[in-house]
Amino acid sequence: QRFSGGIGSKLCGTLEEARQAPAAQTAGTCGCNKSCTCTKSAVVFSDLYSTDLLPAMDGDTKTMTFLQEVVDILLAYIVESFDRETKVIDFHYPNELLQLNNWELQDEPATLDDILISCRATLKYAIKTAHPRYFNQLSTGLDMVGLAADWLTSTANTNMFTYEVAPVFVLLEYVTLKKMREIIGWPDGRGDGIFSPGGAISNMYAMLLARFKMFPEVKEKGMSSVPRLVAFTSEHSHFSIKKGAAALGIGTESVICIKADESGKMIPADLERRILEAKQKGLVPFFVSATAGTTVYGAFDPLIAISDICKKYSIWMHVDGAWGGSLLMSRRHRWKLDGVERANSVTWNPHKMMSVPLQCSALLVREEGLMQNCNQMHACYLFQQDKQYDLSYDTGDKALQCGRHVDIFKLWLMWRAKGTVGFEAQIDKCLELSEYLYNKIKDREGYEMVFDGKVRHHPTLRFRSHAVREKPLTLVHVAPVIKARMMEYGTTMVGYQPQGDKVNFFRMVISNPAATFEDIDFLIEEIERLGQDL
Amino acid sequence: QRFSGGIGSKLCGTLEEARQAPAAQTAGTCGCNKSCTCTKSAVVFSDLYSTDLLPAMDGDTKTMTFLQEVVDILLAYIVESFDRETKVIDFHYPNELLQLNNWELQDEPATLDDILISCRATLKYAIKTAHPRYFNQLSTGLDMVGLAADWLTSTANTNMFTYEVAPVFVLLEYVTLKKMREIIGWPDGRGDGIFSPGGAISNMYAMLLARFKMFPEVKEKGMSSVPRLVAFTSEHSHFSIKKGAAALGIGTESVICIKADESGKMIPADLERRILEAKQKGLVPFFVSATAGTTVYGAFDPLIAISDICKKYSIWMHVDGAWGGSLLMSRRHRWKLDGVERANSVTWNPHKMMSVPLQCSALLVREEGLMQNCNQMHACYLFQQDKQYDLSYDTGDKALQCGRHVDIFKLWLMWRAKGTVGFEAQIDKCLELSEYLYNKIKDREGYEMVFDGKVRHHPTLRFRSHAVREKPLTLVHVAPVIKARMMEYGTTMVGYQPQGDKVNFFRMVISNPAATFEDIDFLIEEIERLGQDL
Repeated sequence: QRFSGGIGSKLCGTLEEARQAPAAQTAGTCGCNKSCTCTKSAVVFSDLYSTDLLPAMDGDTKTMTFLQEVVDILLAYIVESFDRETKVIDFHYPNELLQLNNWELQDEPATLDDILISCRATLKYAIKTAHPRYFNQLSTGLDMVGLAADWLTSTANTNMFTYEVAPVFVLLEYVTLKKMREIIGWPDGRGDGIFSPGGAISNMYAMLLARFKMFPEVKEKGMSSVPRLVAFTSEHSHFSIKKGAAALGIGTESVICIKADESGKMIPADLERRILEAKQKGLVPFFVSATAGTTVYGAFDPLIAISDICKKYSIWMHVDGAWGGSLLMSRRHRWKLDGVERANSVTWNPHKMMSVPLQCSALLVREEGLMQNCNQMHACYLFQQDKQYDLSYDTGDKALQCGRHVDIFKLWLMWRAKGTVGFEAQIDKCLELSEYLYNKIKDREGYEMVFDGKVRHHPTLRFRSHAVREKPLTLVHVAPVIKARMMEYGTTMVGYQPQGDKVNFFRMVISNPAATFEDIDFLIEEIERLGQDL
Repeated sequence: QRFSGGIGSKLCGTLEEARQAPAAQTAGTCGCNKSCTCTKSAVVFSDLYSTDLLPAMDGDTKTMTFLQEVVDILLAYIVESFDRETKVIDFHYPNELLQLNNWELQDEPATLDDILISCRATLKYAIKTAHPRYFNQLSTGLDMVGLAADWLTSTANTNMFTYEVAPVFVLLEYVTLKKMREIIGWPDGRGDGIFSPGGAISNMYAMLLARFKMFPEVKEKGMSSVPRLVAFTSEHSHFSIKKGAAALGIGTESVICIKADESGKMIPADLERRILEAKQKGLVPFFVSATAGTTVYGAFDPLIAISDICKKYSIWMHVDGAWGGSLLMSRRHRWKLDGVERANSVTWNPHKMMSVPLQCSALLVREEGLMQNCNQMHACYLFQQDKQYDLSYDTGDKALQCGRHVDIFKLWLMWRAKGTVGFEAQIDKCLELSEYLYNKIKDREGYEMVFDGKVRHHPTLRFRSHAVREKPLTLVHVAPVIKARMMEYGTTMVGYQPQGDKVNFFRMVISNPAATFEDIDFLIEEIERLGQDL
C-alpha cells in the first residue's frame, strides 16, 4: 500500500516485495511476482564481471542495468531509512561482523552478482543516518536533493584545483562562498574562502593564516624565525584547535584554555587576563578561536566582547562555527553570533545543522589574497601562467591540499532547492524541538539537566537519566549502559560523554530534519524503558 | 540502435531520444514517444519542491521518482561520456559560463523541475572525465563499480571517526589497509594507516609522524623545543612536501631539494652529500621523501640506495607513491618500487592509476601505534573509553581530521570486482599504451622527446610538438596554444608545463582505462591538426 503511486512497476517489484525477498533479486530474476516488461531478466549478473561494463565494447546496456540495480537497492534503503518501524542499526560487535560476511579481498574477480550482494550486506549493517531517531552526531539526516547532488558529483568525478577541470564547480564555489560571506556580514560579501575536508582542517587553515599574517617569513623559515606564539580558546572548544597547534609546530601547551562559565561560554575577562599574562612572559598571542556552538554544550562564546579584546591586542579572531555557524541562516537565532562580522575567519560546516551530506565544511576569510600568499607553491604542471582563461579561477593553490574533492555542489543544489528561507525553516524547527525536549524533561522524574537549561541557545541538550539517585557513584555507568542497549535494540542513538567534573550525561543533538515531536517523546520513553532496571 | 537490449523501455525513452529532446523530459512528461507504463507522468516536478520529498509525509513515491529522474540524467551522461563522438568539454570562459545559466542563490525555493534543469546544465558544462580521450590529470576515467560504490557511500552518509557510526566501513578500511601493507611487503601486513583527503595531506601526515617519532615532545611543546630540522626530497618531487613543511612550521627553506638525473630520478650521492652538509651546519635531518612516480616526468627514485642512506643516518624514509604506488599491483612493473618495504611510510593514491573515483588516498605506516600517539587528543564525546565494543576500531583519533569522509568503499568494492589481477591488468595496459605512444612519436617529424625515452617506467610521456623548428624562441608558446585549441574544439585534453630549464612540453598521462591504441593515434593526429599553422 505504500507504493500506490505505481512506482513499483517502474522499479519492477515493489519495495515491499524487495524487502521480503531480497534473495530473489539476484541472478537475473527481476524479483517481482507479476509479468513485467522489465529488462533485468535480460542481464544475468552471475555471468558478468566488471570488465563487461563500460568502457567495454557494447557495455552500455549491461552498465545501465547494473547501475539501475544498484540504484534500486539504494532507493529501497532510503525509503526504509525513513521508516520508524525499522531499526536505526543492526548492531554487531566487530568480531561478529567480520564473521557475518566474507569481507576479504581476493586475487580473482567476483561476479557482478557478488558485487550486488556486497552492496546489500554493507547497507544491512550500516547505520541508518537518515532515520528520524538517529541523534548520535552533529551530522544527522539525509537530504534528498543533497543526495542527488552527491550522486551527480560522483558521476562528474573531477577535482577542484583548476577551472580547467572543474569549470562549473569552481564557479559555484565562488557564488556560494560570496553568499556565505554576505550572510556573515562582510561588506558586499568580499573576502576569500575555500571548502575543506572538514571543520578540523578548516580550523587548522585559519590558524595557519593567522600565523602567516603576523609573521609571513614563517612560510620559508619555519617556527625558528618567530617568537613563541600562543593561541587562546575556551576550555569547551573543539579538540581540533589543539590538534592544529600540534601539527603546526606551535604545540598543545601553547594553546591556552580560557575558562568557560556554567553554560559553557568563554569568559572574556579570563581571556584578557591570560593574554596579558602571556605577553608578560614574552609570548606572542596570535590567535583567538571563539566557538559558536560548542561540541558538547552547544554554547556560543560572546563574540563582541572577544572581538574587542582581539582588536585591542591585535590578535587574529577566528570563529569556529562548525556547528553553530548555520544559525546565521535564521533571522530568529542569528543574534547568538552577533559580532561574527568582526572575525578574521569563520569555520562553518553546512554538513552539520544544514544537513548537507558529508563532507561540506567552509572556511571564510575576511582578507582577500591572504590564502593564496600563505599556501601557494606555483606548481607549474597545474597553475600554468600562460593559460587562455582568467587565472583567478584556479583556486587550488589557496589550500594545503593539491587535489580537492568537489564538496560544493551538494550545498549549492540544496540552497537552490530550499532557498535561504528553507534552510531557515529547517534550523528553526531544530531549535523548536530542542525547546520541546527541554520542557518535557526539565522537571521529569529520573532526569536531570546537567546545567540550568534557561539558556537554550542551540539544538543540543545535555541531561542525565538515572533511576538510582540513592547510589550516585553508579551514575557514571548509567549512560553507557543505556547507550549500549539502544544500539543492541537498534531503536535510537544518542551520544553521551563526561565534561570536566561532570560525569557521563547524554548529549542530545537535533539536526535531523526528519525528527518530529513524536520522536522526541519516543526518545524519552525509550531511555526510561532501557534504564528501568538500573 | 545503441539500446537494442531494451533498456530504453525501463528508462522510458531511449537515451537517443533523451539526447535529442532533453527539454521534453521536464515537467512531468515522460519524454518517450510511445505509450508506456512509466510513472514519471504521475509526478509533475514543476509543482513540487524539496519539501515534498522525504521526510515529508507520503513523500516516498515523489522521492523515488525524483531520484530516478536524476539517475536517468546521470546514466545518459555516463553513456555519452564514453562515446568518442561527444566532446570532452564544452568549454566557455568563466565570464561566459556565468552568463549561460542562472547560478545565483536565491532566498526563495526553486521547483524540483528547476533542480533537474540545474543538474542538466551542470553536466552540460562539466568535463567528461570518463571520456577515452581525457588525459589531462593523473586521475582520469570513471570506473562503473567505483561509481556505484560512491553512490552507496553518499546514501549511507556517515563518518569514519568511530566504529559506532561506520561499523562496516571501519572494518573494510582495516581489511584493505592490511592488504595494501602486505603488497608493500611488510611482514604479515602489520603496521598502520589511514585514508586521507588526498596525497598532499597523506604526505603531510607522514612528515608529522617522522617529526613526532624523533621528537615526541614537539606535540606539546612545539618547534621551539626541538633543534632545526631539515627534510630532503628530489627537485622533481611534488610541491606538497614544501607545502607540508610550511604548514608544520618547519619552513620551505628547510626542505632541501636533491638533484635529479636527466630522467628525473633523485641522485643518491647528492642526497648523502646534502645530509652531511646539513649535519655539519648543526641541522637535524629527520625526513627523506623519495618519489615513486614523479608528477611531471613519472620517474621512480632509487629506493634501495635511498633507504641505505636513511638507515645509515637514522632518518625517516617516506615514499610518495601517490602516482606510482599503484604499480605495486603489477608483477611486471613493481620492481620499479623495489625497496619500498624499507620505508617507514608510503603514500599511495588509488584514485590515480587504479581509477578509483576521487578522493581515495592512503597513508601506510610501518610502525603500529605511532599515528595514534602522534595525533590523539582523546575527545571525550567521540572516543568514550567505556563503550561496549573493542575500542581499537575507533580509528578517528589517528588523523588530524575529526570527521573523515568514507573513501574506502569505492576501493574495496572495485578490488572485490576486479580482484588483484584485474587491477594488475588495468595498470599493465596503461604502460603498454605508453610504450605504444613512445614508439609512435620518438622519430616522428614535429615531435621531440623531452628526455631520452629509453627509460619508460611509467605511463607518462613528455614530448613537444613544434612545426617551427627554425624559430625555437616560439617553442614556449606552442603547447599552450595547442592546449587552448584542444579545449575550444573539446576533442581531447592533455596537460603541459615547463620543468627546470625545459620550456613548455606536453605531459601525457595514461591512467584512463577507457583509452585504446586508437585514442593514442587520435591524440597524435589531433595535436598535429591543431598545431599545423603554428
